[in-house]
Amino acid sequence: MALLFLSSPERAAVWGPMFDAAGEGFVVGEEAVTDPAEITHLMCWLPPKDLRRYPKLKVVIGAGAGVDHMPRMPEGVTLVRTLAPGIDEMVRDWVVMATLMVHRDMPTYLRQAQAGQWTGHVVPRARGTRVGIMGMGRIGTLAARTLSQMEFDLVGWSRSGRPVDGCDVFGSDRLDAFLAQSEILICLLPLTDETHGILNADLFAKLPQGARLVQAGRGAQLDMDALKQALNDGRLTSAMLDVTNPEPLPETHWAWRDPRVVITPHVAANTDHAEGARHALEVVRASRENRELPGRVDQDRGY
Amino acid sequence: MALLFLSSPERAAVWGPMFDAAGEGFVVGEEAVTDPAEITHLMCWLPPKDLRRYPKLKVVIGAGAGVDHMPRMPEGVTLVRTLAPGIDEMVRDWVVMATLMVHRDMPTYLRQAQAGQWTGHVVPRARGTRVGIMGMGRIGTLAARTLSQMEFDLVGWSRSGRPVDGCDVFGSDRLDAFLAQSEILICLLPLTDETHGILNADLFAKLPQGARLVQAGRGAQLDMDALKQALNDGRLTSAMLDVTNPEPLPETHWAWRDPRVVITPHVAANTDHAEGARHALEVVRASRENRELPGRVDQDRGY
Repeated sequence: MALLFLSSPERAAVWGPMFDAAGEGFVVGEEAVTDPAEITHLMCWLPPKDLRRYPKLKVVIGAGAGVDHMPRMPEGVTLVRTLAPGIDEMVRDWVVMATLMVHRDMPTYLRQAQAGQWTGHVVPRARGTRVGIMGMGRIGTLAARTLSQMEFDLVGWSRSGRPVDGCDVFGSDRLDAFLAQSEILICLLPLTDETHGILNADLFAKLPQGARLVQAGRGAQLDMDALKQALNDGRLTSAMLDVTNPEPLPETHWAWRDPRVVITPHVAANTDHAEGARHALEVVRASRENRELPGRVDQDRGY
Repeated sequence: MALLFLSSPERAAVWGPMFDAAGEGFVVGEEAVTDPAEITHLMCWLPPKDLRRYPKLKVVIGAGAGVDHMPRMPEGVTLVRTLAPGIDEMVRDWVVMATLMVHRDMPTYLRQAQAGQWTGHVVPRARGTRVGIMGMGRIGTLAARTLSQMEFDLVGWSRSGRPVDGCDVFGSDRLDAFLAQSEILICLLPLTDETHGILNADLFAKLPQGARLVQAGRGAQLDMDALKQALNDGRLTSAMLDVTNPEPLPETHWAWRDPRVVITPHVAANTDHAEGARHALEVVRASRENRELPGRVDQDRGY
């Protein structure tokens, strides 16, 4: 029983000693595998093409929080995504920052600063400003908690529509009603067939005039041309993006230089290698003891 | 008994109907005063030079949250500053935004964006990052609450050293120990003789190397040349300023164009006219009933 590790040397340098200390098998790189039947777990960004080389493989752990790039697992192999509370909190922090930046008109103040222009604008209070969060999983719930504590009026949207911490959550069939309430729209959705391209002209048209967008989901969810059009129409006032389409965003892309758009290069979360290793060790133990695997992915659902 | 109103027409348009509805006397402008002995309250940014024109004047309400620009009141006249919970929350929101922006290296990402550069950097978690708040009044306490909820390690510094909501607060004699812990330093101090120029080279030298500054106090507290030197020395990594020295900051000032500095033009709070009027009405009622005046200033202490 061993975990085959197919990721970066920096990460291996943290994981190796932690697996050794826990007495768990740890093999770095396919060329180091002496007995393929020993491999029960695999940690990777993308798995090798032919997983049948490892007849006892039970679990594949994806290196990131998202698994939209993963191929369908063969029969008998469970896909798990990395669970790391620190990652959730980091994304929450980026989302809170970005929400405040669009709410407080930072794109305007950043543009003015370039011209040395000292001009204040009245902005509304957080209290009474309606924020809609698409995707009420762990990160959405954390973000809703902090933004509610700051008195924003929160609503959520999720497949289930299950309410979270006193925040109204609209189910998947009530998207239009949710959008009509979202003066600031935060996207935290996973990438699935249903969410591919979801941030498009149709969706923007259902937001209140002058809405603001915070995108911390996945790049392929956003139609960048529709974003530009919505900014030009005044449907959107500004947008803050941590993920873009394509990614990385080419140096000459219009969005870098549009003063209504602020972009960070997919940095809402850093990987914490030790936290990832702790999760992987927990997955190894849980699968040995036939317990539910933390972070198990339902590939039919897509997350 | 009437309040003499010496402020903007926009504000008068909100205050007038509210005073009428409450049955309280309200006079706009000194030229409209028919009987000076009728004036018991005065609302202004700066009072007229000779307050002895109003023999029954009891209370001056300053239009802003700060009163550092106010002359000493004559015997028998109490100075009150505007108390508005919405203002406190707005400053809290700006402070939380600015803290996250310096913590998450937004100055670097904003500079990169201008060049269309997609390069991520590892930043530390909020959990374990030490934030020091100078000034633990109403706004400092609100900011500490939100930042603690986001897992930052908070310490405060205030004259009294009284702990706030489980956050350690250092007293005025323990400034050095407080500074040594402040990887992100937030200034929310009122402007007094003791705090004039307090953000200077001596103070910066006591911060951890690479610290970050969030300035939402008053412009005259900050030595801008010392800020530049501390940025060049690496003592400070970045700074976010809502108040500057001088103010407004001249168009050609170095700080506008230094990529390590982000400036907003004194917009951490907007005045909410209705909220100010509600406070003024409460002051009028409290003084009639000889109750403690909400927002009463101790001019010896300076706030």
